[in-house]
Amino acid sequence: MTIDATAPTTFDVARVGDVDVVTFSGTHHSNAMSSARMAALSGIAAELEADPGSKAVVLCGGPGRSFAVGGDFNEVSDFHGGEEVDAWIDQITDLYVSLLSISKPVVAAIDGYAIGIGLQIALTCDYRIGSDDCLLKMPEFDLGIACNFGGYMLERSVGRHVMQHMLMSAAPWPARRALRDGLLHETVESAALVDTAVKTAAKFATYNPAAFRATKPRLNAGYADGLHDLRRDAKKSHRAGFSSGVPQRRMRAIVDHGA
Amino acid sequence: MTIDATAPTTFDVARVGDVDVVTFSGTHHSNAMSSARMAALSGIAAELEADPGSKAVVLCGGPGRSFAVGGDFNEVSDFHGGEEVDAWIDQITDLYVSLLSISKPVVAAIDGYAIGIGLQIALTCDYRIGSDDCLLKMPEFDLGIACNFGGYMLERSVGRHVMQHMLMSAAPWPARRALRDGLLHETVESAALVDTAVKTAAKFATYNPAAFRATKPRLNAGYADGLHDLRRDAKKSHRAGFSSGVPQRRMRAIVDHGA
Amino acid sequence: MTIDATAPTTFDVARVGDVDVVTFSGTHHSNAMSSARMAALSGIAAELEADPGSKAVVLCGGPGRSFAVGGDFNEVSDFHGGEEVDAWIDQITDLYVSLLSISKPVVAAIDGYAIGIGLQIALTCDYRIGSDDCLLKMPEFDLGIACNFGGYMLERSVGRHVMQHMLMSAAPWPARRALRDGLLHETVESAALVDTAVKTAAKFATYNPAAFRATKPRLNAGYADGLHDLRRDAKKSHRAGFSSGVPQRRMRAIVDHGA
Repeated sequence: MTIDATAPTTFDVARVGDVDVVTFSGTHHSNAMSSARMAALSGIAAELEADPGSKAVVLCGGPGRSFAVGGDFNEVSDFHGGEEVDAWIDQITDLYVSLLSISKPVVAAIDGYAIGIGLQIALTCDYRIGSDDCLLKMPEFDLGIACNFGGYMLERSVGRHVMQHMLMSAAPWPARRALRDGLLHETVESAALVDTAVKTAAKFATYNPAAFRATKPRLNAGYADGLHDLRRDAKKSHRAGFSSGVPQRRMRAIVDHGA
Repeated sequence: MTIDATAPTTFDVARVGDVDVVTFSGTHHSNAMSSARMAALSGIAAELEADPGSKAVVLCGGPGRSFAVGGDFNEVSDFHGGEEVDAWIDQITDLYVSLLSISKPVVAAIDGYAIGIGLQIALTCDYRIGSDDCLLKMPEFDLGIACNFGGYMLERSVGRHVMQHMLMSAAPWPARRALRDGLLHETVESAALVDTAVKTAAKFATYNPAAFRATKPRLNAGYADGLHDLRRDAKKSHRAGFSSGVPQRRMRAIVDHGA
Repeated sequence: MTIDATAPTTFDVARVGDVDVVTFSGTHHSNAMSSARMAALSGIAAELEADPGSKAVVLCGGPGRSFAVGGDFNEVSDFHGGEEVDAWIDQITDLYVSLLSISKPVVAAIDGYAIGIGLQIALTCDYRIGSDDCLLKMPEFDLGIACNFGGYMLERSVGRHVMQHMLMSAAPWPARRALRDGLLHETVESAALVDTAVKTAAKFATYNPAAFRATKPRLNAGYADGLHDLRRDAKKSHRAGFSSGVPQRRMRAIVDHGA
């Protein structure tokens, strides 16, 4: 897999004061997370972590765009349940671990949809701000695919009861409900979202880096360990799902109907 | 212990469309969980898991009956804190592990009371629907017995703070509060409860079994491991409680007063 | 470090019926937790655990006084990031483990502020009652120090999302919000706080001790294990924070301005 992690259409990284704003730009308003995009984001996470000038990070989907709708159906609907599933799971695991490994404050600014992988990206962040109009969703069972990461990350972040509710219902969680259930820490008007996220991250950037960066990696260590443990099982689970042929048909139907 | 797990007065299992509805019938409206009934339910769980025709399961207490009020006081009030406690704890542990080991969707439909073991049974399910009139309770400390399983299963399902609250207060949790605290995922009128549970389970039955059954066992593995770890400690804790003679007196008083 | 754990100005312990009321008295209305006071409280916890006459415990800050505002800035602002940090962390770890090791019911009665170490003390208790006016806060990042204990104990008690929210915002949690988020189990008027706490603890004291004391240590074992595991990492994190010199300057500024 050859990936140009710096392709301009993939992500924009702009420094606003002390804050690095990563915008999930691209060719589609819903920011589907292809393997190439996930690799690029992993690379950006590693660069921001290595950059001593980077003080705090905001992840957002760009103006009028969704945070991220999850896997790229055009890519995933070609899966057949073999080694390509393993490569995909490695990509996903590496992405989440890379994001959890940023020792600086990371804020998710969620507008539109945060679905599946998109929501899981948000669950690696230290603070999640949603727009009043955002919708969060973990629709894996409805799509016919396994949900190891969604299950683990939701249970770890917001508890087993919310995890069960989102996975079993596969229903969208509007901003208000997401706030109540701890999926979001704060909500604001869509128009004020990025500005609020940047101001919040700028405040976090003032925290004594010596103390913050000695604490965060330890708060994230067990979470990241769990993701590594999940890697092998997730490959088996997702091979089982894709081997059935069911998810590919559902995803192609969704793509064909322009959803 | 010789148990007739198929005794007709113990449980009814009826297939409604794609859903197996397990009704906790019996000779008493409150569905106390004797060792014989727990063994029977463990057996039913194993049968449903082994049956390829079984797509989803509903557990309910039957029309006008409680989901389950917990241990059978007539049985347990004869305990003296010896090997009979160990056998009882093995029965309880095996029951919860059997229920967690059903790889198909399992819905609890809770009317009336779900107390102690009854509530713990519900906490092994993937989705819990309560009637507006249901009451959930973990009254072990008030009865004078240990609460290892209640403590572990509540902390795992709804968090340490709710666990502490229910154990220390030993108070009943009405439907509205149970919904807010994640003990229930949904509430409906009592008259619509079983129908809603069956429709919900029927929806879950449409989820691609290859993906669902490759995911659920992994989401439940750590939970079940914790129950196995608890087995030895729970025997010690409950031997201590029953050796004091206190719970037996409280339970006999409750039985004598027809509560 | 020579400590007079029985100094009369440090804590008062009074038996009210079946309940031992530990009052965090001292020379300051906000009950800062110096190393000497932490050692004294550890000693009291061990004595209460060893005393067969002690049936239940209430921790409170005394009339018109805060529960506890956290570390003593006069002491801590002299830290330089060396071995004195290790001794302090040992003191803190030992205190929390001592409190978790009381096998009898322990109730926190929180008036005024419970901040940092003060809030962490409350999170070792079985039941937390707050006054309507209390404020809970985990301000470590704002002070420029690490937050290993606060992070771990909040995540364990009320979930990762609340932990993230309190640590990242460093904001005060008023009683109503603390109740909603599980930091408190109950709130009452300030004037009724201690009386309510004593009555609640007296009820808990009626629980069969054989069962209660065989259960609580097992519910707390994993929590205490996590604290022991944290000890080494917390020393590294806090050495890093104090070596920067930042927290000392912030604490001295707060002390100088009489906050």
